[in-house]
Amino acid sequence: MIAIHLDRKDDTPLFRQIACQLTEAVQRGRLGRDQRLPTTRELARRLGVNRLTVARAYAEVAAEGWISSHVGRGTFVKDTGQPSGPRRSGALHRPGAGSNASPDASSYGWSELFSRNSERAIDGGLPAAALGITEPGVISFASLFPDPALFPVEPFRAALDKVMRREGHRILGYGPPAGFTALRGMIAENLRSRGMTVSEDEIVITSGSQQGIDLVARALLDPGDAVLVENPTYTGAVQVFHSYGAELIGAPVDQEGVIVSRLREAIARRRPKLIYLMPNFQNPTSETMSLARRHALIELAAGAGLPILEDDFGGDLRFEGTDLPSLKALDQRGSVIYLSTFAKKLLPGLRIGWIAAPREMTQRLVHLKKITDYSTSLLLQAALHEFCIHGDLDRHLLNVVDKYRERRDAMLAAMKRSFPAEARWSRPKGGLVVWVTLPPGVDADEVAADAQSRGVLVGRGDLFHLDGGTKQNLRLTFSQATPREIHRGIRLLGDIIKQRIRRRRSEPQTPPAESLPLI
Amino acid sequence: MIAIHLDRKDDTPLFRQIACQLTEAVQRGRLGRDQRLPTTRELARRLGVNRLTVARAYAEVAAEGWISSHVGRGTFVKDTGQPSGPRRSGALHRPGAGSNASPDASSYGWSELFSRNSERAIDGGLPAAALGITEPGVISFASLFPDPALFPVEPFRAALDKVMRREGHRILGYGPPAGFTALRGMIAENLRSRGMTVSEDEIVITSGSQQGIDLVARALLDPGDAVLVENPTYTGAVQVFHSYGAELIGAPVDQEGVIVSRLREAIARRRPKLIYLMPNFQNPTSETMSLARRHALIELAAGAGLPILEDDFGGDLRFEGTDLPSLKALDQRGSVIYLSTFAKKLLPGLRIGWIAAPREMTQRLVHLKKITDYSTSLLLQAALHEFCIHGDLDRHLLNVVDKYRERRDAMLAAMKRSFPAEARWSRPKGGLVVWVTLPPGVDADEVAADAQSRGVLVGRGDLFHLDGGTKQNLRLTFSQATPREIHRGIRLLGDIIKQRIRRRRSEPQTPPAESLPLI
Repeated sequence: MIAIHLDRKDDTPLFRQIACQLTEAVQRGRLGRDQRLPTTRELARRLGVNRLTVARAYAEVAAEGWISSHVGRGTFVKDTGQPSGPRRSGALHRPGAGSNASPDASSYGWSELFSRNSERAIDGGLPAAALGITEPGVISFASLFPDPALFPVEPFRAALDKVMRREGHRILGYGPPAGFTALRGMIAENLRSRGMTVSEDEIVITSGSQQGIDLVARALLDPGDAVLVENPTYTGAVQVFHSYGAELIGAPVDQEGVIVSRLREAIARRRPKLIYLMPNFQNPTSETMSLARRHALIELAAGAGLPILEDDFGGDLRFEGTDLPSLKALDQRGSVIYLSTFAKKLLPGLRIGWIAAPREMTQRLVHLKKITDYSTSLLLQAALHEFCIHGDLDRHLLNVVDKYRERRDAMLAAMKRSFPAEARWSRPKGGLVVWVTLPPGVDADEVAADAQSRGVLVGRGDLFHLDGGTKQNLRLTFSQATPREIHRGIRLLGDIIKQRIRRRRSEPQTPPAESLPLI
Repeated sequence: MIAIHLDRKDDTPLFRQIACQLTEAVQRGRLGRDQRLPTTRELARRLGVNRLTVARAYAEVAAEGWISSHVGRGTFVKDTGQPSGPRRSGALHRPGAGSNASPDASSYGWSELFSRNSERAIDGGLPAAALGITEPGVISFASLFPDPALFPVEPFRAALDKVMRREGHRILGYGPPAGFTALRGMIAENLRSRGMTVSEDEIVITSGSQQGIDLVARALLDPGDAVLVENPTYTGAVQVFHSYGAELIGAPVDQEGVIVSRLREAIARRRPKLIYLMPNFQNPTSETMSLARRHALIELAAGAGLPILEDDFGGDLRFEGTDLPSLKALDQRGSVIYLSTFAKKLLPGLRIGWIAAPREMTQRLVHLKKITDYSTSLLLQAALHEFCIHGDLDRHLLNVVDKYRERRDAMLAAMKRSFPAEARWSRPKGGLVVWVTLPPGVDADEVAADAQSRGVLVGRGDLFHLDGGTKQNLRLTFSQATPREIHRGIRLLGDIIKQRIRRRRSEPQTPPAESLPLI
């Protein structure tokens, strides 16, 4: 039995206090390999906290690889790799530290040294459930990671080996900070074919779109600047903006994308430095901005002289309808920075994304790229280029778009069959998520906890809201589960929601949650 | 003939104004492929600027791949890759832009939007000569890049293909933000074998040591914080610290490394937030901190409660003598963050480095790593691990240490033979550079310009000084040139220095430069 002590006066969130102490217990050997942890329910009761708090702590510790959950069996301490050499426990004692000294190296008090902006970056907290920790038997609707089973492993291996044999030492040195010229040229050509005006020297290769957002924020944001975003929006972007001391202003999203009149109101109230948007298959709402809204937005930004950061992380994953022009294609001022990634559509492990921006901006971004990590691996850029120019990316896209369409269809069909009439959900034309609005009075946290205890992981909608938002939304991804698993998982989720509705009716003493408009 | 207009009232340095206009001229086709540019001497005369200003501009434009220099032939416009699709010139016109509109997309005025901190990051300016632009026939003593001819291409290709075949999709998804567990374990074990107290969860894999410095700075620095550094020091670190709004305080370096009494004085004057040091083969002075100084430094930092960032970018490249314990090995407070990289010793193109720090710090760094680029490519980490565990890294190190020792010996022998008695230089026990102090009255800028015009690139010492420093130092790297090239290049450099001494004697009207103590 492990002892966990919670300090409610501490600023550290309770779930993190639990996670830290659990991790420490595993690392110190107080919890042995394969030892079973208490259930979330049991530990929550013992500690007097919400069950979700414990679930979040477990998810964090699992994300670090220390423990793992198995449906129907429980959560267990796991072996985390190949610790060889001296025993870990010995390694934790600093030489010369007195016998009374804490064996914890953190006794130095680093936390008092952390910068204000890094504190702000952490406050947001990436939803642990989004980390894609899936164990056999668990159905995940929580992770936006693409399905590894769909990775084009063999064609990519062949491309990689080919460039290694052909280019050898030429691709093993530092590459140009802006990126591999041929890859930049290929991307520029692709963007031009989609109506954008871009030359290859207006492309910067980044280590995934996350770095793209980070570099743009670094180039533009000073502490106190405001950034206008869709609300809800991508948590990873919120954290980046916070980390540069920016304040966020949100505008709601409906079936036609962000509501431009609300953006206009926000701009009138407080002039932002930047607008960050995902016009295609917005994360998490899955909505796509209509052409009329795109035009209105461009006009609004032009009038206010505001630059736009357009995040098109998944625009290639369209199942039906035709592509709408990107904001960058509609823009005539050179005021749009467009970014995307090969992570969602191809291979996350490459960590290759790109930014397309006017030259003055790309020059600044390249300077910042140099001091951030000098350049992205030339070897991987060359392999990716080799893979793409022989048509393997196009072949792969045809395949995954088919597969993900099947999964979306499965999810929508299963929802129609299993969800109660009062629930509403989006009907995405592409991307990897469905956004659910639960019936009034049904708490998303509780549904998520129930589902997790029955082996289905979902994304809590409030995590994507700037202000913590309402407890009425779930983000369900269909990138990881097969159609069969989707049917099973959605049926179970439907049962849980209906149960909650019945409970709400039978337990009138529970104050009904406020009913909120669909966003 | 191109027209270049310099605005001397503009804050933009003259060399950058020239570089921008040259780049634009190439991009717009005003300078055609293979067209010869004026010599630096000729253009300098025409523009009424120092020849070095033009040389620096050319180096910048060459670094971007637009032009290239060939000894004895001159500088030419170069093709920069594979621009396919629409002609570049067409791509530069934005649709809908009026006929009077500038075709330059930067008309939006991005430069007015750049954040204050990104401005500060740029001010430092990476020495263009350090970018490793080497053309056939040019001897480079300017680039710290390892020699591609020494890359273990075939063993690495084999390791890469082996893990791709064995692991497939498992290494093509997002990896853990902290890094591949097995690689972290391997690194921790290696550090323990060198006397450091580190467990695998105290290791964070970074995209090169540049990212390591960036993440640590991001975690610790707020605008206005002071960072104590060796002076001269690594420019890439200075830019990072500036980019978070920090101020830098320098302490000089002698043959035993940084002078601790000077650090003490600096701390007394203004309490810094962090000390950044390279104890082994310091860049650029090549000096190694003595054991006594290491102990004194640890004691000083402990007394002042200051954390230390120890950059051991090249500690494995030791040619003679025995390794001294790292600051982290000597530290008993858990107050040292240690970082290193596989770039210098193995393959820069992997972009893999690491940070070893107490757990509280690594947890913060992992959070920041997530929002910076989520994680470093799992595929490359797995390939690197595979390469290392079969002894290939050790074999490679034996080989490169031998080769670089030969080159150092060649450089020192050539200097002894060719340099005038009044010049002084370091005798590095490892690493990749020699630090030269020129005879009094000989200007390093002029020597560098003369050498460049005769096909030898050297690093100007003042670029590494916080305050621009003196014009008395050169940084000469021996990582790229063969022993034969080293003999030839150093002889030529010796001739130039002697010539400058003679000129100094024969032209007494030139005011002698102030003689400065060796640092």
